[in-house]
Amino acid sequence: VTVNKSADLRSVLIIRCPDETGLVHKVTGVLFRRNRNIVGTQEFVDRDKKVFFMRTEFLGQEQLAEIQAEVLSALPKGSWVQTRPLMPKRIVVLATREPHCLGDLLLRNDYGELNAEILAVVSQYDSLGSLVEKFGVPFFHVPVKEGTEREVHEAEISKILKKFEWDYMVLAKYMRVLSSRFTESYENRIVNIHHSFLPAFVGARPYEQAFRRGVKIIGATAHIVNQNLDEGPIITQGVIPVDHSYGPQDMAQAGRDVERSVLGRALKLVFDDRVIVDSNRCIIFE
Amino acid sequence: VTVNKSADLRSVLIIRCPDETGLVHKVTGVLFRRNRNIVGTQEFVDRDKKVFFMRTEFLGQEQLAEIQAEVLSALPKGSWVQTRPLMPKRIVVLATREPHCLGDLLLRNDYGELNAEILAVVSQYDSLGSLVEKFGVPFFHVPVKEGTEREVHEAEISKILKKFEWDYMVLAKYMRVLSSRFTESYENRIVNIHHSFLPAFVGARPYEQAFRRGVKIIGATAHIVNQNLDEGPIITQGVIPVDHSYGPQDMAQAGRDVERSVLGRALKLVFDDRVIVDSNRCIIFE
Amino acid sequence: VTVNKSADLRSVLIIRCPDETGLVHKVTGVLFRRNRNIVGTQEFVDRDKKVFFMRTEFLGQEQLAEIQAEVLSALPKGSWVQTRPLMPKRIVVLATREPHCLGDLLLRNDYGELNAEILAVVSQYDSLGSLVEKFGVPFFHVPVKEGTEREVHEAEISKILKKFEWDYMVLAKYMRVLSSRFTESYENRIVNIHHSFLPAFVGARPYEQAFRRGVKIIGATAHIVNQNLDEGPIITQGVIPVDHSYGPQDMAQAGRDVERSVLGRALKLVFDDRVIVDSNRCIIFE
Amino acid sequence: VTVNKSADLRSVLIIRCPDETGLVHKVTGVLFRRNRNIVGTQEFVDRDKKVFFMRTEFLGQEQLAEIQAEVLSALPKGSWVQTRPLMPKRIVVLATREPHCLGDLLLRNDYGELNAEILAVVSQYDSLGSLVEKFGVPFFHVPVKEGTEREVHEAEISKILKKFEWDYMVLAKYMRVLSSRFTESYENRIVNIHHSFLPAFVGARPYEQAFRRGVKIIGATAHIVNQNLDEGPIITQGVIPVDHSYGPQDMAQAGRDVERSVLGRALKLVFDDRVIVDSNRCIIFE
Repeated sequence: VTVNKSADLRSVLIIRCPDETGLVHKVTGVLFRRNRNIVGTQEFVDRDKKVFFMRTEFLGQEQLAEIQAEVLSALPKGSWVQTRPLMPKRIVVLATREPHCLGDLLLRNDYGELNAEILAVVSQYDSLGSLVEKFGVPFFHVPVKEGTEREVHEAEISKILKKFEWDYMVLAKYMRVLSSRFTESYENRIVNIHHSFLPAFVGARPYEQAFRRGVKIIGATAHIVNQNLDEGPIITQGVIPVDHSYGPQDMAQAGRDVERSVLGRALKLVFDDRVIVDSNRCIIFE
Repeated sequence: VTVNKSADLRSVLIIRCPDETGLVHKVTGVLFRRNRNIVGTQEFVDRDKKVFFMRTEFLGQEQLAEIQAEVLSALPKGSWVQTRPLMPKRIVVLATREPHCLGDLLLRNDYGELNAEILAVVSQYDSLGSLVEKFGVPFFHVPVKEGTEREVHEAEISKILKKFEWDYMVLAKYMRVLSSRFTESYENRIVNIHHSFLPAFVGARPYEQAFRRGVKIIGATAHIVNQNLDEGPIITQGVIPVDHSYGPQDMAQAGRDVERSVLGRALKLVFDDRVIVDSNRCIIFE
Repeated sequence: VTVNKSADLRSVLIIRCPDETGLVHKVTGVLFRRNRNIVGTQEFVDRDKKVFFMRTEFLGQEQLAEIQAEVLSALPKGSWVQTRPLMPKRIVVLATREPHCLGDLLLRNDYGELNAEILAVVSQYDSLGSLVEKFGVPFFHVPVKEGTEREVHEAEISKILKKFEWDYMVLAKYMRVLSSRFTESYENRIVNIHHSFLPAFVGARPYEQAFRRGVKIIGATAHIVNQNLDEGPIITQGVIPVDHSYGPQDMAQAGRDVERSVLGRALKLVFDDRVIVDSNRCIIFE
Repeated sequence: VTVNKSADLRSVLIIRCPDETGLVHKVTGVLFRRNRNIVGTQEFVDRDKKVFFMRTEFLGQEQLAEIQAEVLSALPKGSWVQTRPLMPKRIVVLATREPHCLGDLLLRNDYGELNAEILAVVSQYDSLGSLVEKFGVPFFHVPVKEGTEREVHEAEISKILKKFEWDYMVLAKYMRVLSSRFTESYENRIVNIHHSFLPAFVGARPYEQAFRRGVKIIGATAHIVNQNLDEGPIITQGVIPVDHSYGPQDMAQAGRDVERSVLGRALKLVFDDRVIVDSNRCIIFE
């Protein structure tokens, strides 16, 4: 058992199963008999649905398949178990024209604080290409021509993405709606960031509406993308204060600042395997 | 000119007028010629609508009517000017059954940090009566009987309120919808507090929905009540972090905590005459 | 296993012991064999000192002594184990003249959100008596006369406190230094709150110094009181933003606001048995 | 008069003078007679010292010297007046080995959200060179050899800096103590960032001490560098929450995150000419 969040070679064991007595004891028993030192264990139970969630971090990265099988056999029917070595994730990024989130990822990728490696960046515009290439990351321009169907465009992107072995796709301000076919083929592997307001503003020019309404905070939400698109399971959220002196453009800049920092926090959680998706909600084991 | 937010006898001059060059100079000239020392001046201009807003705090509380008239005559047509002595406000409170906001007001009223005097509390239930009376504040129970029409109930409340000379009405978790007739008769004098979420949840049992969605922050919004009810001009907003371990009841308690503190901040701004309502927005001169 | 922080009859098991493999398995085994459903388990290991900490919350409040003995016998030498029923705490409060923290405790005690019962309030002044008595709580005025020795005054206080069976003492702005003899006799049972600054200001009139230096935030720290007094183990901390327009008195009021909310959060953690003191640090299992 | 913080060609007028009645009127009169539209005016008075501070932003960038002279002649003896066109600032950066603050500056410089242009980066190591050169910014490696005297090293740096016409020097984690001679020659033009704790830790390995003490927040302070070095006038401060599970290295990373964002906010204030240094305090007109 160790203290630091930084550290040795580790693995993570993630469980979702029907709740019953003795689950922690059974699961930790598997690790104990294999002499695996536990770094930390966290649980959560959804009382209404009677579902048990658990994340256990332990030392060593060998025999993960055996451990997974043994844990599964100790659990009730209908259980789901995943074991993974804790390793930096390999990611691809989709962007449009805004550099604030993408740039932050590239920079932290460069100085080694992202806990991930950026394999490729794809955009329908080429304006971000020079920024991406500064950092030696492959950039793919997949333009949307007049009349290009969404599915055709997405198929082109998928074709590029298939060349890479990636764990997660990050939408770093990708301003196009994705089809269900696309999101379903990468289930629970796409992370998105968007700003939002209290109250919510429907319709065009949200920053103009927010200014007219005099909102005092701008929020940002990072979430897993599923068929609900912007309404997918929330990973983390944050806010930034604004006041009446912020015009629509100033609000937009404040929105970018909070998006960048919230996306950063969300990715840290995802890349450390601390996020379990359960229907339209995330269980986060910080 | 003085520094402290606490201090001497002061007045405040509030202006909303069509924008043009030289407004600050003209307004401060009136005060200068009357040898009134300015404590602080703040302005804001709505560029699209070309409207100028200004709040000036100055020493002394005499001849306010003359100052107001003189300032008005120096301003362009269509200007609105208000002068007020800076004094503790007299308030009435409407509540239902929840004590968290009301109790905080009573307490700070009691030890003198509210910058207001609570003249009366009105509720459709009597459960808060003993708390209110502990503090020597009159409590009025105006029950809603079966079949009582909203207008009839509100008329009873208004009758009570007329006995007091009050500046502001605070809805400290008043859980009934108010009629337009009621809100219009107290224009810009009613302050409300309510919780909210990112994203917003429509329909019944919002905390249950928020739990199912796994929201990570709960917000609270304090606002002026007009015909838009919960959608009136925002005074201030705040958030409190929650996580997946919060059941609906825990979320409700977190919601109460942030409501209490946001209402406190909003009232401080209102009672210090720092809030100007402009259509559906507040200009806040902090 | 259950989800809500609110809920059924529960107990808590707290462990501090030399670290080794299999501790979680062994401890949960004791509960499993007694068919006790675990609500949640958290661990922490101090890697340098090789010390393991654990908090387990489980259903039921019977046979706690047996459970404690059985867990202790399963652990390595030098272990410390505590079992407690999760119940509202009984507290006594020491105050001086400031009502902001005390009033908040009395209020939340009154409407049942404190998770504690206030048995008595003691002060060297009588100015807070009427506030305390509003809430039907016994108030004891123990004056400090000219030449009263500290030990004599503390002995008088202790004599009063002995009449009550209390779990924790809260210093709600008690502005006198306590002797080591006093703090030692209530080890890890006294909670204090005080403001602080970045940078720290030594010497008299700290708010005056903070104003002269133009600090932008005021912090508050809630901590366990030991012989280090203000330097005891930290429970929680918070900050509030200020700016150059805050005079020393405005800063003091902002300080009171943040003290009140930080003390509230700290007591929630203490009263829910989520705080373990380890030499001069607190392990907090939120 | 305009609304947006973004906007047209503007200038700023900054005043520090003995306090007396009518100052706002006199100063705005100069601008009114020259038909200059005021965007916003803010004042502050230090009551004890009887000093008046004012910042006025107005349209146009012509005849600033004349305006300055005219305002000065309208003010009492001992006044200080500065007029400046509002323009992106030219800056030089001193760094050591840490890329987090420097990288953020380079990135926002690159996509145009810094309101400044980075002319050069200087470091005593060459490890940051490749990052800086990615962005096409000149990098100067000025090594500290064994036995190099501080003054000699600083003289070399100054020689390089003299080649550029710069407004501000940013210490983006420059880990060497600067001599008084150096800081005095760039009075009020050097901005520094450093982390700090509540309570403050003196001596070596502060993160180790903070871990042992169990601090719950880490703060960062951005300030103007004067002879007091780390104790110079504070521009802005921020905090980030941590808990007992953060080892010293995790605390250091949290410290870097808050340093980066606090430095960003401070520079925005400095580059927008919103910071007035007054002895050891900053007046900030946000």
